[in-house]
Amino acid sequence: MSETQAAFDRKTKPRRSLGALEDVAVRIGALWGVAVPARPECAIVVAAADHGVVAEGVSAYPSEVTAQMVANFEAGGAAINVLAREAGARLLIVDAGVGTPTANIAAGAAMTRAAAEERLREGRALAARLASEGIGLVGVGEMGIGNTTAAAALCAALLPVAPAAVCGPGTGLDAEGVARKVAAVTRALEVNNVDAADPVGVLAALGGFEIALLAGVLLGCRSARVPVVLDGFITGAAALVAAAIDPAAVEAMIAGHRSPEPGHALVLERLGLEPLLDLRLRLGEGSGAALALPIVRSAIALLNDMASFDEAGVTDAAR
Amino acid sequence: MSETQAAFDRKTKPRRSLGALEDVAVRIGALWGVAVPARPECAIVVAAADHGVVAEGVSAYPSEVTAQMVANFEAGGAAINVLAREAGARLLIVDAGVGTPTANIAAGAAMTRAAAEERLREGRALAARLASEGIGLVGVGEMGIGNTTAAAALCAALLPVAPAAVCGPGTGLDAEGVARKVAAVTRALEVNNVDAADPVGVLAALGGFEIALLAGVLLGCRSARVPVVLDGFITGAAALVAAAIDPAAVEAMIAGHRSPEPGHALVLERLGLEPLLDLRLRLGEGSGAALALPIVRSAIALLNDMASFDEAGVTDAAR
Repeated sequence: MSETQAAFDRKTKPRRSLGALEDVAVRIGALWGVAVPARPECAIVVAAADHGVVAEGVSAYPSEVTAQMVANFEAGGAAINVLAREAGARLLIVDAGVGTPTANIAAGAAMTRAAAEERLREGRALAARLASEGIGLVGVGEMGIGNTTAAAALCAALLPVAPAAVCGPGTGLDAEGVARKVAAVTRALEVNNVDAADPVGVLAALGGFEIALLAGVLLGCRSARVPVVLDGFITGAAALVAAAIDPAAVEAMIAGHRSPEPGHALVLERLGLEPLLDLRLRLGEGSGAALALPIVRSAIALLNDMASFDEAGVTDAAR
Repeated sequence: MSETQAAFDRKTKPRRSLGALEDVAVRIGALWGVAVPARPECAIVVAAADHGVVAEGVSAYPSEVTAQMVANFEAGGAAINVLAREAGARLLIVDAGVGTPTANIAAGAAMTRAAAEERLREGRALAARLASEGIGLVGVGEMGIGNTTAAAALCAALLPVAPAAVCGPGTGLDAEGVARKVAAVTRALEVNNVDAADPVGVLAALGGFEIALLAGVLLGCRSARVPVVLDGFITGAAALVAAAIDPAAVEAMIAGHRSPEPGHALVLERLGLEPLLDLRLRLGEGSGAALALPIVRSAIALLNDMASFDEAGVTDAAR
């Protein structure tokens, strides 16, 4: 880390004046074990799945919208298509269980332990494949009607906090809807009787298929030393799961933005991550990650391309 | 404004879920008088000048650094060169008085009223030229050793607030340096005896040449209906001057980032602007504006390129 910071300190600017940009480049340098990381190719992984807990009336949208939005992703018409294009990033849509929802977590386990492990493996393999194809920076996102409830249940179990602390309006619930969400999460924690010391068990009990797959992507990115930009609350829940499985996973994580969902700030605080953006986004899809990619890439570009005080003949007041 | 918002509300996403991106696109639509603004070509204007108030010991860097950094800009080695390239923006460096400093504001007026008016005219003409060349989005920045002191004096006079409320470390002053800055601003307000009802008089008494030129750019951007992304505290002072001359100028302004300088939050609050970024940048040069340009462009791209609920066959829960 100190070598990347030293390289920044030779550039023609006051020390530390690039703030969070210096911090993110220093973290990437440490992950890669190099003083000056090269400019990365970028990809965004969006995992989609359906959720049986929608039966509890916890979403403003019906389950059919998950498949409709995946079709919209494939046709190029969604927000993430536009933002991936703007960011110059490859976009991968992964069907982790669209149309084959998890069981209703308010009544029992979302999936078997084997199904959770399978999604984790798939996610790890996807990260390894992206790394082998030369991707050096990944953004993650998700689509799944009902998945803020799964994310809230995971966060309530793993942080741990009371359900009300992590249940918000999601994509547009009213106060009654939020109350139904709190009730569903409360029941999910009761009936599943999870043990936070067994994160794969917690994931199987409460998690969505897309959240399990994304947790695998995060673990695989750490293994491949590919920095990965998180999106909002749901990818934050996947990050909590990944960090519970392997605390070193956090080393590869960059917080793209802060969601207005009340649980997200708690997740970022637990992970020790400072978000790059705070734009009141509550869309998901990886939109906040995509908007943060150019900032991360700019941080690396500054480290590569700026002149040093010596090269430019500029007086260095701090020397 | 309502037409741009209505266009956003037809897109395949929950209402208002793109937060600040929707707000910025709506403001640009209102400025242009169209529901869906077209994707703009971008330029960044960096104005540079020297400041006689450096004699008061108010900067961590010597005055010679202004000219050295302008040479660095011309050679392509500074942060703003890298960030303009990353943002796909043209970069214009304007010498507003490098090597020909303003008089020391702690002892009298910075410049004559005629000199201030001349810089305002030059700035307006530059904005008009950029608009005529097809530039549809401008970022502004500055370079000038000592210019946080000039900016602090302008803000203290125009907000108005006590000097201590708007004097911070700038690019790296220690506590004694900040105390010297507060003393210099206090004397500047005393000896110049400015009248906030005469903003051009305030500008001539306290302002830097680059700040005057940038105030002209901001006024010219409003006249040409070109949205303009502000940078940090110094461009904020130019924005205060422009808004005091013509309150409508604010309609064209977008706050790129929030500087850690204590006066900047006060300026943004007065202008009624919410910054897009908060990355602890304290560099200037237009760096925060440049980093915000892709976000503004993404907001416009979303409005142009996303599919509507009808086009994509997605169920619209809010209808």
